[in-house]
Amino acid sequence: MVSYDVTSIGEGGIRLSSPLGHRIQRARTFGIQIAGTEANVLCALGCLNWNTSWFSALPDSALGRRVEFQYKGFGVDLSHVKRVPGARIGTYYVEYSKPPLPTKVMFDRANTAFCNMTVDDIDWDALLDTRLLLLSGLTLPLSPTVRKILEVANEKAHAAGVPVAFDVNYRHNLWEVEEAAKVVRPFIEQADILFCKRDDVNLLVKTVADEDEGLEALREISQASWIVMSNGAKGAEGLIDGKRMHEDAAPVEILDRLGAGDGLAAGVLHSWLNGNAEDCLKYGVNVAGLALSHYGEQVTITVDELDSLVKNPHSSLER
Amino acid sequence: MVSYDVTSIGEGGIRLSSPLGHRIQRARTFGIQIAGTEANVLCALGCLNWNTSWFSALPDSALGRRVEFQYKGFGVDLSHVKRVPGARIGTYYVEYSKPPLPTKVMFDRANTAFCNMTVDDIDWDALLDTRLLLLSGLTLPLSPTVRKILEVANEKAHAAGVPVAFDVNYRHNLWEVEEAAKVVRPFIEQADILFCKRDDVNLLVKTVADEDEGLEALREISQASWIVMSNGAKGAEGLIDGKRMHEDAAPVEILDRLGAGDGLAAGVLHSWLNGNAEDCLKYGVNVAGLALSHYGEQVTITVDELDSLVKNPHSSLER
Amino acid sequence: MVSYDVTSIGEGGIRLSSPLGHRIQRARTFGIQIAGTEANVLCALGCLNWNTSWFSALPDSALGRRVEFQYKGFGVDLSHVKRVPGARIGTYYVEYSKPPLPTKVMFDRANTAFCNMTVDDIDWDALLDTRLLLLSGLTLPLSPTVRKILEVANEKAHAAGVPVAFDVNYRHNLWEVEEAAKVVRPFIEQADILFCKRDDVNLLVKTVADEDEGLEALREISQASWIVMSNGAKGAEGLIDGKRMHEDAAPVEILDRLGAGDGLAAGVLHSWLNGNAEDCLKYGVNVAGLALSHYGEQVTITVDELDSLVKNPHSSLER
Amino acid sequence: MVSYDVTSIGEGGIRLSSPLGHRIQRARTFGIQIAGTEANVLCALGCLNWNTSWFSALPDSALGRRVEFQYKGFGVDLSHVKRVPGARIGTYYVEYSKPPLPTKVMFDRANTAFCNMTVDDIDWDALLDTRLLLLSGLTLPLSPTVRKILEVANEKAHAAGVPVAFDVNYRHNLWEVEEAAKVVRPFIEQADILFCKRDDVNLLVKTVADEDEGLEALREISQASWIVMSNGAKGAEGLIDGKRMHEDAAPVEILDRLGAGDGLAAGVLHSWLNGNAEDCLKYGVNVAGLALSHYGEQVTITVDELDSLVKNPHSSLER
Amino acid sequence: MVSYDVTSIGEGGIRLSSPLGHRIQRARTFGIQIAGTEANVLCALGCLNWNTSWFSALPDSALGRRVEFQYKGFGVDLSHVKRVPGARIGTYYVEYSKPPLPTKVMFDRANTAFCNMTVDDIDWDALLDTRLLLLSGLTLPLSPTVRKILEVANEKAHAAGVPVAFDVNYRHNLWEVEEAAKVVRPFIEQADILFCKRDDVNLLVKTVADEDEGLEALREISQASWIVMSNGAKGAEGLIDGKRMHEDAAPVEILDRLGAGDGLAAGVLHSWLNGNAEDCLKYGVNVAGLALSHYGEQVTITVDELDSLVKNPHSSLER
Amino acid sequence: MVSYDVTSIGEGGIRLSSPLGHRIQRARTFGIQIAGTEANVLCALGCLNWNTSWFSALPDSALGRRVEFQYKGFGVDLSHVKRVPGARIGTYYVEYSKPPLPTKVMFDRANTAFCNMTVDDIDWDALLDTRLLLLSGLTLPLSPTVRKILEVANEKAHAAGVPVAFDVNYRHNLWEVEEAAKVVRPFIEQADILFCKRDDVNLLVKTVADEDEGLEALREISQASWIVMSNGAKGAEGLIDGKRMHEDAAPVEILDRLGAGDGLAAGVLHSWLNGNAEDCLKYGVNVAGLALSHYGEQVTITVDELDSLVKNPHSSLER
Repeated sequence: MVSYDVTSIGEGGIRLSSPLGHRIQRARTFGIQIAGTEANVLCALGCLNWNTSWFSALPDSALGRRVEFQYKGFGVDLSHVKRVPGARIGTYYVEYSKPPLPTKVMFDRANTAFCNMTVDDIDWDALLDTRLLLLSGLTLPLSPTVRKILEVANEKAHAAGVPVAFDVNYRHNLWEVEEAAKVVRPFIEQADILFCKRDDVNLLVKTVADEDEGLEALREISQASWIVMSNGAKGAEGLIDGKRMHEDAAPVEILDRLGAGDGLAAGVLHSWLNGNAEDCLKYGVNVAGLALSHYGEQVTITVDELDSLVKNPHSSLER
Repeated sequence: MVSYDVTSIGEGGIRLSSPLGHRIQRARTFGIQIAGTEANVLCALGCLNWNTSWFSALPDSALGRRVEFQYKGFGVDLSHVKRVPGARIGTYYVEYSKPPLPTKVMFDRANTAFCNMTVDDIDWDALLDTRLLLLSGLTLPLSPTVRKILEVANEKAHAAGVPVAFDVNYRHNLWEVEEAAKVVRPFIEQADILFCKRDDVNLLVKTVADEDEGLEALREISQASWIVMSNGAKGAEGLIDGKRMHEDAAPVEILDRLGAGDGLAAGVLHSWLNGNAEDCLKYGVNVAGLALSHYGEQVTITVDELDSLVKNPHSSLER
Repeated sequence: MVSYDVTSIGEGGIRLSSPLGHRIQRARTFGIQIAGTEANVLCALGCLNWNTSWFSALPDSALGRRVEFQYKGFGVDLSHVKRVPGARIGTYYVEYSKPPLPTKVMFDRANTAFCNMTVDDIDWDALLDTRLLLLSGLTLPLSPTVRKILEVANEKAHAAGVPVAFDVNYRHNLWEVEEAAKVVRPFIEQADILFCKRDDVNLLVKTVADEDEGLEALREISQASWIVMSNGAKGAEGLIDGKRMHEDAAPVEILDRLGAGDGLAAGVLHSWLNGNAEDCLKYGVNVAGLALSHYGEQVTITVDELDSLVKNPHSSLER
Repeated sequence: MVSYDVTSIGEGGIRLSSPLGHRIQRARTFGIQIAGTEANVLCALGCLNWNTSWFSALPDSALGRRVEFQYKGFGVDLSHVKRVPGARIGTYYVEYSKPPLPTKVMFDRANTAFCNMTVDDIDWDALLDTRLLLLSGLTLPLSPTVRKILEVANEKAHAAGVPVAFDVNYRHNLWEVEEAAKVVRPFIEQADILFCKRDDVNLLVKTVADEDEGLEALREISQASWIVMSNGAKGAEGLIDGKRMHEDAAPVEILDRLGAGDGLAAGVLHSWLNGNAEDCLKYGVNVAGLALSHYGEQVTITVDELDSLVKNPHSSLER
Repeated sequence: MVSYDVTSIGEGGIRLSSPLGHRIQRARTFGIQIAGTEANVLCALGCLNWNTSWFSALPDSALGRRVEFQYKGFGVDLSHVKRVPGARIGTYYVEYSKPPLPTKVMFDRANTAFCNMTVDDIDWDALLDTRLLLLSGLTLPLSPTVRKILEVANEKAHAAGVPVAFDVNYRHNLWEVEEAAKVVRPFIEQADILFCKRDDVNLLVKTVADEDEGLEALREISQASWIVMSNGAKGAEGLIDGKRMHEDAAPVEILDRLGAGDGLAAGVLHSWLNGNAEDCLKYGVNVAGLALSHYGEQVTITVDELDSLVKNPHSSLER
Repeated sequence: MVSYDVTSIGEGGIRLSSPLGHRIQRARTFGIQIAGTEANVLCALGCLNWNTSWFSALPDSALGRRVEFQYKGFGVDLSHVKRVPGARIGTYYVEYSKPPLPTKVMFDRANTAFCNMTVDDIDWDALLDTRLLLLSGLTLPLSPTVRKILEVANEKAHAAGVPVAFDVNYRHNLWEVEEAAKVVRPFIEQADILFCKRDDVNLLVKTVADEDEGLEALREISQASWIVMSNGAKGAEGLIDGKRMHEDAAPVEILDRLGAGDGLAAGVLHSWLNGNAEDCLKYGVNVAGLALSHYGEQVTITVDELDSLVKNPHSSLER
């Protein structure tokens, strides 16, 4: 019997945003959100009553504790988070916009407590004491030592028979396509559950003409039994235990564009943990829709509410 | 010469809402609105310069006075409201949502000052000193004593020749369909002005195939000379002095889903008070549209503004 | 070598707005924006690194300094603004609305510091020390002395060979069509760059059937080498150095309807200052779109951002 | 039997304030309060269950209705308020400050709907249908026609045997001491209840050395049976039915300096209406303290709460 | 080895407060805080890195989850909290005031999920798996079944050798002095650590003349080795392992009066857990001071920060 | 004739603060202020109508432009500010507190655009085109290249006969006392106007017993004709053209502790620019008081308002 349902390693940071319709150049207040792709998934799963654990490093500071307060509220176990006195925290600035201007994300995340973590900072036995290890490609370019941690974690998990979920999650402003393609390749190959954006297939795997070819390209190189390809507003595509699936995106009004991919992963993993292959994309697109229609990156939802969204058509008012 | 144009009996309560995009589970602030279906109609009519009076009971507390302050601001006469020391006030929680999640209303309204009112608390002469008595089916299930008050009021009004407007306003979370159908039946039958949602016809009267059948089903059992059937985004249907009418819903961007039915009633009653049968649905759908496009349940509008909306096509900017 | 790229004369005032969805009749707070059609154009151009100067009069008061603080932040030179102790400032109230109610603008702008300016208050040499003089038809009806200033400025500029951009900008609540048509005529005739709304062509120049006729009507009476006709949601039409142009409106979600016309002018003048006739309407519609999708009247944008909007299709997220 | 307990005539306006610690020169939001010295007294008395009526003129506009909404919420009868289409409303700006800077009030109140009222606008029978007429010296300099109204009201009230309460309420920025002294004199002489600030005695009546001399100076020229002299932080002095009284100011932390004088008057008049001469200053200083310790000018208080403050020493927490 | 450092049983609820200077009667927003005397202590101890567990019942609703989210953020274990579908949550309203009006607390806490808990709802082995059991006298009057739970818990803890900390915490609006004195007596007698307000000694134990007599009165009837008597602004008195101690209150500016007693208990228990008898009152008064100078009831503080406050004189700025 | 009255070199950054009474660990919003000791002085002088110029480097980003927008609003010339693409901006976090907790400032200011400036980035002729050069000791430890810039600036200014004002401004968290004492020494020696905190005399110059000795210690080593020693709440001490002066601190309620030293400098320099030696400390303590009683670091004040504060005793209300 393992201690956790899902365990992950990643960075947590502070996300500051000006109110919609007000540019940062003239802003007087910032809203504070907590950012971190892996932890976003863990928080959503925590709401859904799964036991989750997050491995990371944070500064031993008010800002580091701000991140901890949030994740603990969602029930994520932080006993393996390293506190580093005097360290920096990753900081992100978001300027929400409506067309014609895009919503913009600016990073100030160099030299953080997390970037300076090394393999010696990880309690490997504790890390693998889980039903599933979640790794994200977004974390690979953050620093050489962090990349090493993920590579070792991937190896050790497979060696120990712990299934690995890998989300490709490529960000063009963090590294070049060529390097990324090379580095993420073994993670894709060995993943048990694989998440990859439609666009990232073209960039990192192989140029394909449509969704079917995209899934096929992933299937060719990956041993994953669950392959989920997110396709933005077009919804999600899947090869789940060899079965081709498609699910339209949930009807949604977007309040905060960030976090939809993490929501998709959370919904799919919730189904995986429940052994419910059939509805996994339905759960995925609904959690993604919740991420888009609420501020902040962590989805707040109960099992009953989520089941209700998956089973019933959308209603606008419940009273 | 009577003292009031419209008089009603109902409950008033406090409605607390988290900001859009923020779930109650993590909220830090609640906006305060005042809720009460009958009083919503009276407030809109108060804006439109009609004399209105509200019979109710409220706790003799800061929260009770919060309700009074609001309704008095709209010009509703509260001299027949009973103040009950130490009593509870009805409390409602609203979580506004955008799709995929519905906007949710949660009630904490048991054992309130109003629920404990009895027929002895009513000054019946004062209640009937009006051109029109407005009653709502939403109030019938709140408590046995309250139901009795409405039944007596209905009888006494008809006996005294005071016209009664009845809004069926069925709420599935307050009582069962079977009981509701039985209890509202005499109110429907005897009403002079009748409001009924399209869906409530099916549930409480008779399963019908379309709008025409719905109106016909109501006409068969009711003596009402004005029958108005609200049909959500499809607009309003009417049999007004025997004339079949339809009006599309006003073009609207919805900010707050609650109160549209009360707005429809207010607009129609405004026309009735003016003796303007012809435009009654136009007035109704426009006040309903105002309710949907503003926060809170009470519509704020002047006679000139409303006439202008009814007479002219919508303009987006007036300067 | 002249000191400024664009110089203008106009009024600046305080614009107070209730939050969307809350009517002024019940509002508890007003947002403060700074209003002034000519200065809006100068502020946008200031962001885009052009040297601009604004001639005006403001009360020597906290409210007057509020206007100055804003415009200086955008880099507009205010050394020719007259400070008048004890004077009034123009005050505007905006009630933002969603359908069915229109957004409403109410003026309280009589007897202001600016209205009382006379030709003797202008340093004419300084006014003409510029590559372009911008005048607006909105300012003509504010007072007889102000109208005189614009008429003299128009004459002196043409006499001195300073090109004049004139924006017709008719407001029906400030004066009658007949008078307006007569007064703006010489400005239209003599303008070097002319901006006119499609509707204003019909009202002030000649009834025309379509966009082509509208531009032709303007061309017949005006010597302007750049004629730009804004056409609301349909975009912008132009006769630029004799070449017929059309540009669709930018895709936009409207947060604040005010200031789009000023944005169009700013984008076009930015192109004129750059000698870029070809893309002038593209720049115009994009700055107009920015005005509509942000609160307040002054557009905040950098050269790089604007170039990117003009050159690339819209993206919803940039990270 | 008269219809009202207290009736008054005065102006109502909009008061806009920047948040404490933020100067107007850089403010982004204004809080909205409703200002009007006589109506402030009526609102406090309305809370205390007295019937009050306010005679005034307001623009028939959103801003005028904003004032009405507030006063109606306090239960003040507005049936004698004239609505004037297109008129201005008195506007006040407040910059709250902590030392060293004083809190500053700036007026923009010329040419308002109220200033243009004349004696013909008053329904004199209705005005005198009251137990007490309240007049304020602050209103006398607003316009010649308004001054005339107050002079006629004063005469007619005395002729009809309606007691008059007069609050001297001198404002140096509205008129000169010499003129004020002359104009207020007959009001002081004929008042039945007289309120005068300690400083105003020196300015308008006679230079006196201390509180006793101040009261004596007023007594010499006035027939008032209740003379109340406010003395700022030192409290209130009184000659009530010939009896010398003193009451220390209530312990207070000041949040909003405006409205204390009106609170004192409201507390004293509440006692007068109750026939409680003995405690009148106690009630006065407590309502004044409530005005200072809450935002806005209208005091919200119940009879029970006020009795409790008067009878018991201050407690900091009640649970 | 036990699992927790401190375990407790109590109620958690929602506390709604109007902004300072604005009365509830006219409020538009409520701030949301989480209330619960025992959990407040656990949260502060959670910040200080102690393992804590809270036994309670909450509705299975958004409001119940709001409470859970907060306490989990502070690291309190909630695995023994019962979720009750459809139940009420305790609701409290706070109106912050400055003199002369007291801050007022109003309760709406009848018939809650917690009040309906019975001894059968408690996992007694889990409850006693702790270094210390904390019980509060405030909880005793909430319902007969809840009282029974505390009485059984007290007995079982003593039988099992688990030390009990008891905070007398009398509230006059929840029960009568006579009944309270009788019911709390055995808790006082058997407590190992005893907290009692100076005023509660007089009310519930014996009328005493000063602090020394107060402590002596408690010592006579209680076996507690640590007796702490809070004395409001005068600080704290103690008989700690038989040693008489006094500590002045920390210098403080009060922003939120609620929670100081819980802070005192948290600071003292932190010392007890550390085996630091000598400084226990210093820790107590400082955590109490933090509760008073921050909004909300749960104190947020790190071990380093608290040590620094205890060891060093207050500084106003740290940079 | 020189172009500027005062010129300075320093860093500008973003200061983020949680609302008073809410710890950063749980904050949801940050207020945004702009920080920069030298620019704070220039902004206050800009309000007072002096021409000022700021030399610095900022990232070419939304955050860099946020700083520019603020300083331009105060009228500071930024034409010598270098924009660095991709660079960091100095970030500061402030947690306002009331006792017992101190207000805390946390820095995240390593590796900023400004720290990487070198002497080659300065246009030296432009820098010295001023009546006064202001340098601050706070800037010396930021980086070696920045220190070099200040040393060269100090030399060149003295060589060119440009007076130098030097504010010692020691920050213990930026460097050690020993190094600081050595590095600031030549700046102290050569300054024409010298500002030094009372505590910094002891730390960096010589241990002294009282204010007189402190000033004497500075006079011994400095050639400055104006020596101003700030002494916190005790006010300011001066040796101005050899004359010993003292001024009590202005009466003040502190809203924001940061910026008082910059305010003192601004007030003194305003007097120096006016040639008003006699009142220089009066101006200094009043501008310092304004800094403390308003949020943010830049003082907003007009010449008339400041003259009034200096000449008249404090009044609490001006209307």
